[in-house]
Amino acid sequence: MITCRSQVTEMILSCKVRKGLKWRQVAEAIGMSKEWTTAGCLGQMAFDKTQAETLGKLFELSDEAIAWLQIVPYKGSLPTAVPTDPLIYRWYELVNVYGSTIKELIHEEFGDGIMSAIDFSMDIQREADPKGDRVKVVMSGKFLPYKSY
Amino acid sequence: MITCRSQVTEMILSCKVRKGLKWRQVAEAIGMSKEWTTAGCLGQMAFDKTQAETLGKLFELSDEAIAWLQIVPYKGSLPTAVPTDPLIYRWYELVNVYGSTIKELIHEEFGDGIMSAIDFSMDIQREADPKGDRVKVVMSGKFLPYKSY
Amino acid sequence: MITCRSQVTEMILSCKVRKGLKWRQVAEAIGMSKEWTTAGCLGQMAFDKTQAETLGKLFELSDEAIAWLQIVPYKGSLPTAVPTDPLIYRWYELVNVYGSTIKELIHEEFGDGIMSAIDFSMDIQREADPKGDRVKVVMSGKFLPYKSY
Amino acid sequence: MITCRSQVTEMILSCKVRKGLKWRQVAEAIGMSKEWTTAGCLGQMAFDKTQAETLGKLFELSDEAIAWLQIVPYKGSLPTAVPTDPLIYRWYELVNVYGSTIKELIHEEFGDGIMSAIDFSMDIQREADPKGDRVKVVMSGKFLPYKSY
Amino acid sequence: MITCRSQVTEMILSCKVRKGLKWRQVAEAIGMSKEWTTAGCLGQMAFDKTQAETLGKLFELSDEAIAWLQIVPYKGSLPTAVPTDPLIYRWYELVNVYGSTIKELIHEEFGDGIMSAIDFSMDIQREADPKGDRVKVVMSGKFLPYKSY
Amino acid sequence: MITCRSQVTEMILSCKVRKGLKWRQVAEAIGMSKEWTTAGCLGQMAFDKTQAETLGKLFELSDEAIAWLQIVPYKGSLPTAVPTDPLIYRWYELVNVYGSTIKELIHEEFGDGIMSAIDFSMDIQREADPKGDRVKVVMSGKFLPYKSY
Amino acid sequence: MITCRSQVTEMILSCKVRKGLKWRQVAEAIGMSKEWTTAGCLGQMAFDKTQAETLGKLFELSDEAIAWLQIVPYKGSLPTAVPTDPLIYRWYELVNVYGSTIKELIHEEFGDGIMSAIDFSMDIQREADPKGDRVKVVMSGKFLPYKSY
Amino acid sequence: MITCRSQVTEMILSCKVRKGLKWRQVAEAIGMSKEWTTAGCLGQMAFDKTQAETLGKLFELSDEAIAWLQIVPYKGSLPTAVPTDPLIYRWYELVNVYGSTIKELIHEEFGDGIMSAIDFSMDIQREADPKGDRVKVVMSGKFLPYKSY
Amino acid sequence: MITCRSQVTEMILSCKVRKGLKWRQVAEAIGMSKEWTTAGCLGQMAFDKTQAETLGKLFELSDEAIAWLQIVPYKGSLPTAVPTDPLIYRWYELVNVYGSTIKELIHEEFGDGIMSAIDFSMDIQREADPKGDRVKVVMSGKFLPYKSY
Amino acid sequence: MITCRSQVTEMILSCKVRKGLKWRQVAEAIGMSKEWTTAGCLGQMAFDKTQAETLGKLFELSDEAIAWLQIVPYKGSLPTAVPTDPLIYRWYELVNVYGSTIKELIHEEFGDGIMSAIDFSMDIQREADPKGDRVKVVMSGKFLPYKSY
Repeated sequence: MITCRSQVTEMILSCKVRKGLKWRQVAEAIGMSKEWTTAGCLGQMAFDKTQAETLGKLFELSDEAIAWLQIVPYKGSLPTAVPTDPLIYRWYELVNVYGSTIKELIHEEFGDGIMSAIDFSMDIQREADPKGDRVKVVMSGKFLPYKSY
Repeated sequence: MITCRSQVTEMILSCKVRKGLKWRQVAEAIGMSKEWTTAGCLGQMAFDKTQAETLGKLFELSDEAIAWLQIVPYKGSLPTAVPTDPLIYRWYELVNVYGSTIKELIHEEFGDGIMSAIDFSMDIQREADPKGDRVKVVMSGKFLPYKSY
Repeated sequence: MITCRSQVTEMILSCKVRKGLKWRQVAEAIGMSKEWTTAGCLGQMAFDKTQAETLGKLFELSDEAIAWLQIVPYKGSLPTAVPTDPLIYRWYELVNVYGSTIKELIHEEFGDGIMSAIDFSMDIQREADPKGDRVKVVMSGKFLPYKSY
Repeated sequence: MITCRSQVTEMILSCKVRKGLKWRQVAEAIGMSKEWTTAGCLGQMAFDKTQAETLGKLFELSDEAIAWLQIVPYKGSLPTAVPTDPLIYRWYELVNVYGSTIKELIHEEFGDGIMSAIDFSMDIQREADPKGDRVKVVMSGKFLPYKSY
Repeated sequence: MITCRSQVTEMILSCKVRKGLKWRQVAEAIGMSKEWTTAGCLGQMAFDKTQAETLGKLFELSDEAIAWLQIVPYKGSLPTAVPTDPLIYRWYELVNVYGSTIKELIHEEFGDGIMSAIDFSMDIQREADPKGDRVKVVMSGKFLPYKSY
Repeated sequence: MITCRSQVTEMILSCKVRKGLKWRQVAEAIGMSKEWTTAGCLGQMAFDKTQAETLGKLFELSDEAIAWLQIVPYKGSLPTAVPTDPLIYRWYELVNVYGSTIKELIHEEFGDGIMSAIDFSMDIQREADPKGDRVKVVMSGKFLPYKSY
Repeated sequence: MITCRSQVTEMILSCKVRKGLKWRQVAEAIGMSKEWTTAGCLGQMAFDKTQAETLGKLFELSDEAIAWLQIVPYKGSLPTAVPTDPLIYRWYELVNVYGSTIKELIHEEFGDGIMSAIDFSMDIQREADPKGDRVKVVMSGKFLPYKSY
Repeated sequence: MITCRSQVTEMILSCKVRKGLKWRQVAEAIGMSKEWTTAGCLGQMAFDKTQAETLGKLFELSDEAIAWLQIVPYKGSLPTAVPTDPLIYRWYELVNVYGSTIKELIHEEFGDGIMSAIDFSMDIQREADPKGDRVKVVMSGKFLPYKSY
Repeated sequence: MITCRSQVTEMILSCKVRKGLKWRQVAEAIGMSKEWTTAGCLGQMAFDKTQAETLGKLFELSDEAIAWLQIVPYKGSLPTAVPTDPLIYRWYELVNVYGSTIKELIHEEFGDGIMSAIDFSMDIQREADPKGDRVKVVMSGKFLPYKSY
Repeated sequence: MITCRSQVTEMILSCKVRKGLKWRQVAEAIGMSKEWTTAGCLGQMAFDKTQAETLGKLFELSDEAIAWLQIVPYKGSLPTAVPTDPLIYRWYELVNVYGSTIKELIHEEFGDGIMSAIDFSMDIQREADPKGDRVKVVMSGKFLPYKSY
């Protein structure tokens, strides 16, 4: 009996290691970006029926598990409020160190409002650099102005 | 008597509002990007002597305050571990929802290691869009491989 | 020297008590709803120039304070993550008890996405009832679908 | 052996996914609102005998599970004090940003007291809008004046 | 300039110590119980005009402070979520040790609902006992049944 | 293998639901108050041999479980420092709102010391009231003066 | 204007450093143990009139401060739940490492109940030892049996 | 498969209840104090081979469990930072109320440094008293002076 | 089915105790330092294929477990933000007591930047000392200057 | 009036910036290491009379401030349990990632006990490296075996 989406995430991770799959391959299989696909497989997005069935074959999932992939999950992928993993912590640190800067500059350009984390996309690429390759991340989120009424 | 950098940050913010300055203008004055300049003025970066003196004139700071601008500050710009401000929270949420995804994809591309938050730069731009303009953020951080020994 | 918006909020609250003003009167003075006006005066919204000047006269504020009213504030009006005040706690409790229900029903109706807290309005009214009058709150937030990419 | 209500919640969720049920259908089956019914199925309300038996058939529950549905549960549906799920977080954010406003306006209208979260009902509807449909939530809670003695 | 109720609480406490007043005397002066009066003076209840003026004379308060006594305060009298003071902690401990018991017994007697902390009164008395006097506390709160709808 | 008292609490709760027992009946069976008996069954008190054996028969417990009922448990019946359940939260709220009041009044009557939560008893009754029945709780705790030495 | 006991504690500490007083001398002056006297001066105990007046002379306190010394303070001398100071942390660690042991042994000897922290005394002495002197602490607290009723 | 020491602690506690053993008997069996022995059995100390084998017989442990008794455990015996159990909380309270006092008096006697919690012993005894027996705890920890360099 | 790396860590620890292995032996088997090897076995580093296979033989792991050893783990080896284990706490304490000192001295020598915890190595040795042997730890981390842009 | 050591720390930091002093110079002035001297100036160590007077001249302190430098301070130099400053966080991260490794290796070499953070010294040096200079930190702490008794 499957009682929450995180059980399916565990099945996917377990199968991915056993079969040595890459996230890029998974993304290609369902025809979506590697960022959104990975987030979905890690329990942060809901898949449509076709995507779920393709993933079901790839990860050898039961029909019940495939049904769960189409349910909107309870999101949030970190076990603690402040992440302990060094790679993820650096991102938390960027929010901490640059958070007030991002706020100031978005308000200066757009006025009061936010950058959406829902109408949002992200692209992660390797940036070749003679002094050591870099991770280049492009984020694009719709500006949502605060409504006054 | 100035006893910590945050007092100088308050002086800068107070003067900026009184004089109606823009961060872009401040950045131009010292010849650096608006992102790094704003972070520095908000107490997250240290300035060199020339930069500090230029800022001192712009924000009408005392010599003591100008000296403090050249001291490396205790960093972290948020009053709580989970930020309450909606704009900044969306960034925390991105780390929470996409954190494990970012980790998986960087490891898939680069192996074990992190994206540096120190050898790092950020660029925030308006992205015109007929369905509503977007905030485009490009981040670039050096990949640092975990040393095995 | 004013160094953050919360100082202006204190000035407003202090003057409001001294002069015995009502939030409805304040809202009428700037021609906006009582909900948005109160939130703004409590340091959660930014006012435009005309609104700020009207509030400045009403609350006997200095030009510097009026300038701060036009700056987007660092939002979040509660001193603790779980509010201690009984009236506000009941709202936290509603989120706690009904949060998963709201999630299920919005997803059932709209699919994956959220109800915006930015493109949002609220109306609070007295609802007469022979068994004891009730507080009626109508909230309206744009549905934002999660972008897949 | 069932030892707490959350085990029954898991059975319900598991069966709901397997059978592809909608909360509206569940609500109709027991003749109550979709909001109260969903909250009850998610372990936040107690059902009477008839309701529990109807749910038992719908979700293929054992007699023991049906007995548990009639027990008042330990309430609170969120795994953390500050919810990580974006949809639910927006509600927490509303309490954070508008909490002090709601407090001021209810006190201005009613005096000292609270809006009940017990003698309370909620209605969630789609609100058609050419700029994008909205979620409309109407909440009604009895005003309870603080007793002075 | 008074900017929040807690400043008035401090004035009251300071004057009470200077003049050596007893809470019983304060309560008699405004004709209310010692429990409600003390809670009000400690910033947990709002007073009416007559009460506030009487307290103003007793505690030598300014007109501005008297006005603040009539404003509903932000409630919650403890500096930490788990109180450190031993006397108050014992009450927290009672909630911790007996909380589930109180829940079970109220539900057994009344069904689903709560004991109101708003329509509530409390009486604290000395109970003579040859083995050592006891503190007797009688609490009375209206039962509020959960509304089903 | 039973390794802690909470396992026995779960057995008791499970059997109580299956057999439809009332706490009053349980209390009568061992000849103690319903308050102390319930607290004990919920893992907050230790029973003597006779009581434990009677409970063993009532709840169909093994000899090992009966032995555990006689062991002093690790006390504290709430899963979080601030309880989420609305009924129990109201009690936490009372401590928060009235905590400083209780402290002041006990000190005014008795001097420095505490009301014992160990040499303590509690009685919960229905109080008939035409405006809605009330929960009446009488608590009695020995006053313990702080020793000076 | 003095508004809480901690202000008096600061006056005492400030004067103690200026005058180079020892806690032993302070204790002798009021004829109590050094442990209780120090705790009282640090804001954890209430003094009687004679003691307060003697302390007032010793620490050059105003009459208002002397009055505050006779008020029962809000107790708890540590700024964080887990103390950061290494000396005090070792005591926290002892509770952490030996807490369950102390519980087991007191219950084995006395049955269910606690060691009082109110009817309690403590004596701290130097214990000469050729391998390095030791701190010897003798604590004595009345055993309080849990009341069954 | 045993994967951590706490599993062995559970086996010991389970067997101790089944066989009705006393900690004093366990301590005698291995010829150590009851305080150290109990702490070890509760997973806070490591045993040598002979001790572990004696305990293995007493508690009917497997060879694997006996091997784990000789491994240094991850220490800390409390499930929360602030303990909820009343007996253990009193000790936490002593640290909170008397912590600053202990610090002052040890520094006054010894200078800067700490009382060791490692080179440490404890003795818990019943102290007969006509007004009610007392728990007497003697602690002895080596003073460790802070090294200056 | 293995679903996360920590399951493999448990297998390794369990086998290590059963077979009485030393970390030095493990390190020699894979030809790496004892520090890095231990961290890897405890789930903090990723192994290459050869290392993983050698460890698989040593610890009698399945192929699935060996595959997991080559996956970058979610790092962070402590169950709580402030560690309770005395040995590990001392290190936390060093960060707490000396953290600001380390920051000042690194900035004084190198300017703004950090000592890398990724391009990092550590060596732990026994340092013989007639007054008691010492633990000598040598840490070496690349200095990373903050990028200005 | 100086009421705690942190006020003196602020005076020192303020003067250090005004006069452009280096910690190395300060250390030379009192003839101690730069690590211990800096820690002391930042409020983590107590100075003797001669050291305090030398520092008093260097930092232009009053006699009262000089007296406070000789008082053992309440230690702990970080404003939050998990440090936000990136340089200091890396050290917290090392404890988090390598904490269990350090524990294992010290126990393997020394048996049960800890590395002292009191009988401890630290040396921070620049380590020249063609691939980028490194920070080399040597720590030496006495091993303290757990006493069994």
